[in-house]
Amino acid sequence: MQRLKDKIRDIPDFPKPGIIFKDITPLAKDPAALRLAVHYLVQPFLGRDITAVAGMEARGFIFGSLVAWELNLPFIPLRKPGKLPYDAQSISYDLEYGSASLEIHTDALNANDRVLLIDDLLATGGTAKASCELIEQLGATVEALGFVIELDFINGRKQLEDYEIHALLHY
Amino acid sequence: MQRLKDKIRDIPDFPKPGIIFKDITPLAKDPAALRLAVHYLVQPFLGRDITAVAGMEARGFIFGSLVAWELNLPFIPLRKPGKLPYDAQSISYDLEYGSASLEIHTDALNANDRVLLIDDLLATGGTAKASCELIEQLGATVEALGFVIELDFINGRKQLEDYEIHALLHY
Repeated sequence: MQRLKDKIRDIPDFPKPGIIFKDITPLAKDPAALRLAVHYLVQPFLGRDITAVAGMEARGFIFGSLVAWELNLPFIPLRKPGKLPYDAQSISYDLEYGSASLEIHTDALNANDRVLLIDDLLATGGTAKASCELIEQLGATVEALGFVIELDFINGRKQLEDYEIHALLHY
Repeated sequence: MQRLKDKIRDIPDFPKPGIIFKDITPLAKDPAALRLAVHYLVQPFLGRDITAVAGMEARGFIFGSLVAWELNLPFIPLRKPGKLPYDAQSISYDLEYGSASLEIHTDALNANDRVLLIDDLLATGGTAKASCELIEQLGATVEALGFVIELDFINGRKQLEDYEIHALLHY
């Protein structure tokens, strides 16, 4: 995985002092590395009973749509408030500082769906937890979660104990 | 193209009264239709001297990353202000009501790059024009623009006369 880690750029003090941001744009810029990352992301889920891939706005759209493409499954966008034009279900959740909301179209999933949730980064797990709850509010099941990067030292997994989680790169 | 048009949902009065919004989420949800759309999107650019694919946040990330994947080229995200963590070049542009900005990492492209710009929708052309200028500010060349949908009645092409434009679905 060092080849992939070489494509993640540390940005100190972004978005605020003391945070080291993991920049995935060098990975998106390298087609061979991106292909490797997406193939590793997909690997645990080949042959599984998954019916849809969901991705969170905005970086999750990049990895989520590619994972959906490779698995030949529907891609379901989870969006920030006011962006989805059709009937949407909404969830609010707490952030380290402030709060945020995510929305999903009410017709995006149903009770038969088993969803793979994809995002670039697992940090506190707040966004991932809210995304799982949003999917479950539509009656669907979260089959597993996949991340390019997991910040182990934050231990976001403790919020997500009920779920199967895979991450490629650990820090 | 009717098969693809069947996957674009009209949402009246979104985001404001009088606007009929073209909702692409049914297309993203249908893997066979999405595959067809991306293959048509890519078609005019096969074998061309293109070095990178750029996509605008956020729906452009879905189609842009898939087009980059199919062409085996770097994907360069154009983002809303404050989202890109590294040194970024910014451009502001007028919208029908208000203004907006887009940013690109300064190391995303260089003078040797020939860029294919991808977005879901060409309406007024304001965002597309600003994106082209942003790419050119880094010294790169805009080789062409590709859209899933073009709203012909708005004639966004008149702002983009200097560029080669392809769109799959016309309204």
